Amino acid sequence: MSLSLLEQLIESLRVLPGVGQKSAQRMAYHLLEREREGGQRLADVLAEAMQRIGHCSLCRDFSEQSLCAICASASRDRQQLCVVESPADRLAIEHATGYRGLYYVLQGRLSPLDGIGPRELGLDRLAERLSQGEVEELIIATNATVEGEATAHYLGQLARQHRVRPSRLTQGMPLGGELEYVDRGTLSYAFGSRSEMPE
Amino acid sequence: MSLSLLEQLIESLRVLPGVGQKSAQRMAYHLLEREREGGQRLADVLAEAMQRIGHCSLCRDFSEQSLCAICASASRDRQQLCVVESPADRLAIEHATGYRGLYYVLQGRLSPLDGIGPRELGLDRLAERLSQGEVEELIIATNATVEGEATAHYLGQLARQHRVRPSRLTQGMPLGGELEYVDRGTLSYAFGSRSEMPE
Ligand SMILES: [Zn+2]
Ligand SMILES: [Zn+2]
Repeated sequence: MSLSLLEQLIESLRVLPGVGQKSAQRMAYHLLEREREGGQRLADVLAEAMQRIGHCSLCRDFSEQSLCAICASASRDRQQLCVVESPADRLAIEHATGYRGLYYVLQGRLSPLDGIGPRELGLDRLAERLSQGEVEELIIATNATVEGEATAHYLGQLARQHRVRPSRLTQGMPLGGELEYVDRGTLSYAFGSRSEMPE
Repeated sequence: MSLSLLEQLIESLRVLPGVGQKSAQRMAYHLLEREREGGQRLADVLAEAMQRIGHCSLCRDFSEQSLCAICASASRDRQQLCVVESPADRLAIEHATGYRGLYYVLQGRLSPLDGIGPRELGLDRLAERLSQGEVEELIIATNATVEGEATAHYLGQLARQHRVRPSRLTQGMPLGGELEYVDRGTLSYAFGSRSEMPE
């Protein structure tokens, strides 16, 4: 027996993180009962987003253009480059701090056992960028997890190879903490009081 | 400044119940990073569902056809009619019990202060159906809330006016409980041990 459209809708909603059968049901009924227009708009935007959002060619963040709004902006300071693991971390820093430099989004972290090495994170392209001499400070904002620290260590060495000063968010960042989940005040403080990484 | 497609996606996801800014962000990133196909499928099914799912002309449940699968089925017992407040309640009973009769979905409950009277719940059409003589038992499965009980009382009288026997789920149903949230075993027991409503 083929699934009804309602059953298909419930099934499809389960692609969302943290949404099980029961939540998916509630979402489907809510949209059908009270939010037909909002549901239609979500369908339209979602289809367009899945098709058109790619990655910024410069910073690897999500972008529907070949250059994201931040990389394309004339008013950002191109001498500071902040490296984060994920687009969510980039967003958290942008919201919590007054940072006006550029970003580099790894879309992951070094994890040799999972086959994720420097190349998978685009570090060859990052090295090329550092070698061009425009960047003076590499702000390393990977998570305070084991893998995040290993990645930070690697990035610190990479920076020094290209005579770029590496700095790291340290003060107040909880050990093992993921940047995205740290509260705004703590993140802002840690970002502002970053210090040069030891060799 | 106009919103980027990603910002529009996050905004649109907030139409879902229980989804705030932070969850919407996480959902958007999850789809973009790991579930492009699932996201595209959700967009397609959602658009179709918002357009095509209406109400069954007989029972008022959601349906993409003019008659839902249950009302259209030749194998259901047309002498029993179970009245529920919502499609979710209908689904809960269908999953928890072996009930083989038909349903009537109020899509609400009597609530005079909110302007919801018998007509808004389609009770004129229900009365007409009861007057046709096919239905022998009206199983009243509205919630055990104040409004649900008032609705049940009204339905009981309506049934008797048309010489239909009204019964009510009672045993084991928690006071103030909403049917949709009662566990399967309790619901199954309450449904099986329903008793005729007092006059
Ligand atoms: Zn960019
Ligand atoms: Zn029906």
